[in-house]
Order: sequence, then C-alpha cells, then structure tokens
Amino acid sequence: MASATPRVRALEYRHGVLRILDQRALPGRVVWRRLRRLSEVAEAIRTLAVRGAPAIGVAGAYGMLLAYWEGTRDPDRAAGLLLATRPTAVDLSVGVETVRSAWAAGGDPEAAAEAYHRRVVEECHRIGQVGAPLFARRPRVLTHCNAGALATVEWGTALAPLRVAHQQGRRIFVWVDETRPLLQGARLTAWELAHEGIPHAVIADNAAGHFMRRGEVDAVIVGADRIARNGDFANKIGTYEKAVVAHENGIPVYVAAPWSTFDMGRADGRRIPVEERRGEELSGPPAWRTVPRRSTIRNPAFDVTPARYVRGFVTPAGVVAPHRLADWLARQATAQKSG
Amino acid sequence: MASATPRVRALEYRHGVLRILDQRALPGRVVWRRLRRLSEVAEAIRTLAVRGAPAIGVAGAYGMLLAYWEGTRDPDRAAGLLLATRPTAVDLSVGVETVRSAWAAGGDPEAAAEAYHRRVVEECHRIGQVGAPLFARRPRVLTHCNAGALATVEWGTALAPLRVAHQQGRRIFVWVDETRPLLQGARLTAWELAHEGIPHAVIADNAAGHFMRRGEVDAVIVGADRIARNGDFANKIGTYEKAVVAHENGIPVYVAAPWSTFDMGRADGRRIPVEERRGEELSGPPAWRTVPRRSTIRNPAFDVTPARYVRGFVTPAGVVAPHRLADWLARQATAQKSG
Repeated sequence: MASATPRVRALEYRHGVLRILDQRALPGRVVWRRLRRLSEVAEAIRTLAVRGAPAIGVAGAYGMLLAYWEGTRDPDRAAGLLLATRPTAVDLSVGVETVRSAWAAGGDPEAAAEAYHRRVVEECHRIGQVGAPLFARRPRVLTHCNAGALATVEWGTALAPLRVAHQQGRRIFVWVDETRPLLQGARLTAWELAHEGIPHAVIADNAAGHFMRRGEVDAVIVGADRIARNGDFANKIGTYEKAVVAHENGIPVYVAAPWSTFDMGRADGRRIPVEERRGEELSGPPAWRTVPRRSTIRNPAFDVTPARYVRGFVTPAGVVAPHRLADWLARQATAQKSG
Repeated sequence: MASATPRVRALEYRHGVLRILDQRALPGRVVWRRLRRLSEVAEAIRTLAVRGAPAIGVAGAYGMLLAYWEGTRDPDRAAGLLLATRPTAVDLSVGVETVRSAWAAGGDPEAAAEAYHRRVVEECHRIGQVGAPLFARRPRVLTHCNAGALATVEWGTALAPLRVAHQQGRRIFVWVDETRPLLQGARLTAWELAHEGIPHAVIADNAAGHFMRRGEVDAVIVGADRIARNGDFANKIGTYEKAVVAHENGIPVYVAAPWSTFDMGRADGRRIPVEERRGEELSGPPAWRTVPRRSTIRNPAFDVTPARYVRGFVTPAGVVAPHRLADWLARQATAQKSG
C-alpha cells in the first residue's frame, strides 16, 4: 500500500518563514509568497491566498508562531486577530489554539506548530488509505470546491482517497464542479488533478445534477469546514444542493475530514456561522462587471448540509455513518487520551 | 388589470430589417444590430445574440421572412439552416415552420411572421396575468436563467407574472441565479429587473439551495425550452437541481411557457436533445483562462427535469398540474381549432 507523496503542497515552514503557494494566482501562475509576520498570515487567510479548512488551521498555527518570533507579548491577542479572519472553518481555531496554549503554558510554540502540521498531513494520508476502497466499484466521483492538497497542505481530504486509488492503479474519473463564485474547483482541483494525471472533467456547478440523473456519477465526496456531532456539516456553498440531488438519485455522499474539522462542542448544524463575503466575488471587477450596478448581490460562502444526506464520514480511523458519529467521536477521543 | 407594456424588448421588425438587442453585450452596453439576411439571423441565434426559446422562435420566423426577401427559392433549405443552429428549444421549429408553410403554400410570409410575433407577445402577457396571483402570498420568488422579455420578445414567461404582480403594486422580491456558464441571470434577468425597479438579489447558482433551506424562498418559477406531454421539460442547465432542492424543501416550482414550447409529439423527456456547447464558455478566453489547459471541460447547455418536481405549468389559458397536462393540451388544441 506504499504510495508516493503527491507533488502538490499548500505551504512550507522553515527558519521563521512561512512560504505559501498563492492560490489566487492558480492555475495561470505558480507564485510562492514568504510570510514573516502574524499580520501577513492573517491577510493571506482573509484574502484566500491560503484557503481550505485544514490548511488554514495549519497556517493559523504558524501565524501564532510568527507572532511569537515577532516578540508579541499577548498570545490571546494574536489568536484573536487570526480567528477574526474567517468564521466558518473550525480547524482554524484548533490550529491557533494548539500553538496558543503551548505558548501560554511556556512550552515550545515551534514544536507545537510543526507537530500540528505533521498531524494534519498524516491524518489526510490516512483518509486517503481508508477512503480509497470506497471507489473500487464507484470510479466516477464528483467533488465540489477544492478539498485537495491545496486545502489541507498535502494529500487533501476529499481528493486523498482518489489520489491513493489512482496511485494504486485503479481507474478513477473525477467530475469537478467549477465552484462559483471563486472557482476553486476549476482553478485548483483541476490543477491538482492535471498535475498528477488523474482523468477529470470540469463542469458548471449547474451541470452536476444533469450528470447524476444520467447515471454518470457513482459517488460524491467533499471536504468540510465544520462537522457537528450529529453529522450536519458546513462546506463550500453549493454542497447542500449536490448532496440533496445525489441523495435523490441514490448516489452516496461521503464527507472526508481530519479530526480538527469535527466540532465536538456542537450538537447540530443549526447555528454554524456562515460567512457572507463581498458581492464583487460574483460581479467581477468594475471594468467588466457582469451584474448591473443597481442590483443587490448576496454571497454566502458556505452552506450547511443535514446529516441525513451523508452516507459516511471518511476519517483518519475509518468510515463512519452519521448516526454512529457521536459515539465514534467519543471513542476516538478516549483512544487518543489513553493512546 | 390594465398593465403598462414593459420597456424591455428583444427585437423589432420593420420594412425588411430585423433589429435585435445584442444580448451578449448586456448589462454593460445596449447594442442594437440590424439583420437583413437569413445567414445573419442564423448567426445571431447560434452565437446567442438573440436567445430564449420563444424569442428564437420569433427570430426564426423573421429569418425565414428575410430569406424570402433575399429571393431564396427553397424555403425548406432556409428552414434547415435555421433549425441547425440550436437543437433543444422546440419554439424555434414552430416559428420557422409557421412561415415556411405559409411561404410554401403561396401565402404571405410577412403576415405569417408578424402574426406569429404578435401571438407570442400576447401569450406572454396572458401568462403574466394568469400567473401573478400565484405569488400573492409567495412574494419571494427564485428564477434561473433569463425567461424575461429578452427571452420572449416582451413580458417574458417566468418573469411575466412577477412583472404583472409588481405593476399591480404587490410586493415581489426575485432571487436571481447568476446562471453559469453564460450568466443570463446576472447579466439579463437582473438588468430587466433593475430597469423596472423590481427588488431582487443576484446569487451564485450554488446559493439557491442555501436560501431555500433557510426559508427565504417562497416559490420557484422558470421558463422552458421544450415541454413533453407528460410534463417533463428541458430548460437551462441547473434547472433540474433547483427543482429537486425546491421540492425537497416543500417550495412549489412553476414552469411558464407559451403554446409554442409544448411539444405535443413527445410523450416524455427521455430523448429531448440536449445541446452541448464549447468548453470555452466555462474556461473563459485564453488570456485569463480559469481552467488548466490539460483539463477536459463538459458543457451541456440544458437539462431535463421530470414532471414530478413541478407544481404547475403557467400557460396563456391558466395554470395546470403536470398530471392533467396531456388532457389540457388536447382540449386547448380542440378549442383553438373550433375557436
């Protein structure tokens, strides 16, 4: 089951510098940026230069570390600055809190950040190994947004099982929703798949249901930004529609996530905060604006999908059905403590 | 119930010249083009300068008339050229055939084309009057693509009831799906609504389900490109997803169409031809391409929605449920013959 490390990664840390692959420039240009300050990391997260729930968790951890190197006195203030950038992904708060608590307790923030980084990458690799068999007889898989290496540092969540299956020589074909408004599917997921030679087709988000109904989609897999104990989950806007239409067509929907995405303190999805972003993400720049100036624009970045549409959560420790999720999470927490 | 004629129209014919409002330039610029030849009309339909099922039916009728003025000998050949432009909308063949048969029978093609044009406009106005009461207690209405005046010459199909309700002083709010890949919602529907001061918000197609689930959408209304006798219908890609998600949320879905859109010769939606268009409609021009060059793109322009998701068809003669549609159409045909 040995599988080569994929070549795509979202960020690297060395000697006080966080290098990030600027995801705003893809797929046209590959631009790496060097960040040395907390404020630069916060800005990179806010502007989506680095994005994806697990990846902004790792970036947040390193953001805390850079604050520490800057000589910041107050870890809580640094954490507050990072947490204010984006509200929906719970991973950001997990990554930030991991380093904040080490720092506040007089521990080694660098060791804490690097360990957190390694843990996320290892969990994503496990997700790939655990999830790959799901697609042995369901090779045509639709995904929404980018839950690949770019979103998670390496491997991905949704893309990890597809990567691993492809590396094992299995036939995999990925339907890539372009994912308006910011086109993370067309720009980022397609770029990762093209990079690794995994067959795929980019489609308008509107076309996903069409191909499902025609029997050309065997399964759906997505990442998540926050998963409640009952299995309700927040993910990129449009995920809810894909899940409902897949369910209606008898197509299983899987949600892949590392432990940092499970929000144990949240019973269900009802009050998960949904970020609403600027209308210009839809209308484009003023010079070639696609929406009349007098029109209102609404731009929620996420939606919440009820657990009943999910066949299984693909976790680092196995695939679990929504109705068993709460018990499973409790057991994992116990195992981690005693392990 | 008197209601002012709306100011938006898609085309005008006078003295051998068909003027069309070039829908590719909206909302940025209002450009009218003068067409004097059959080939120019075919090109305008193919490139979506004029679009929308009822409107391309009228454009097709005038295209036949221009062929007649050009001295074309063979009406069948002219009709073939027009029908080859776009396969999905049945209205195109109805408009073309109306003039072709008058011409072939030695009648007056100009009278036939103008009568067809008037009939479509009158039917759309009737759709507005028939449909407006549906939204008296459901004022927040989602629509997909553009089924407005631009798509139908005047009034619209889906937008006609909303226009009439607004003109009657009722509170109406329109959720406008931007409608990728060609943004007919953001560019055209929003432009029409802004033009007439009807409150609305443009959203990513992905966000429609989010607002439905939050209880912020009271009804859905769309147009159609072809409706089978059993109520299955083809419409802009993405309509199927919206209908499924609306149905799942108990939100009624209405389909508004003039008689030319009902394909009496077709029992159900199974073999309605679905046009697949160029991938560049998704990826954009090469200079700022949003999809990697090595990625495949699939771009179906329409999908087919099964009748079970439809609450009612809004026709010029009333609102009819899908299970009663076949009988209703047969009765209308009889009434038209004897009337």
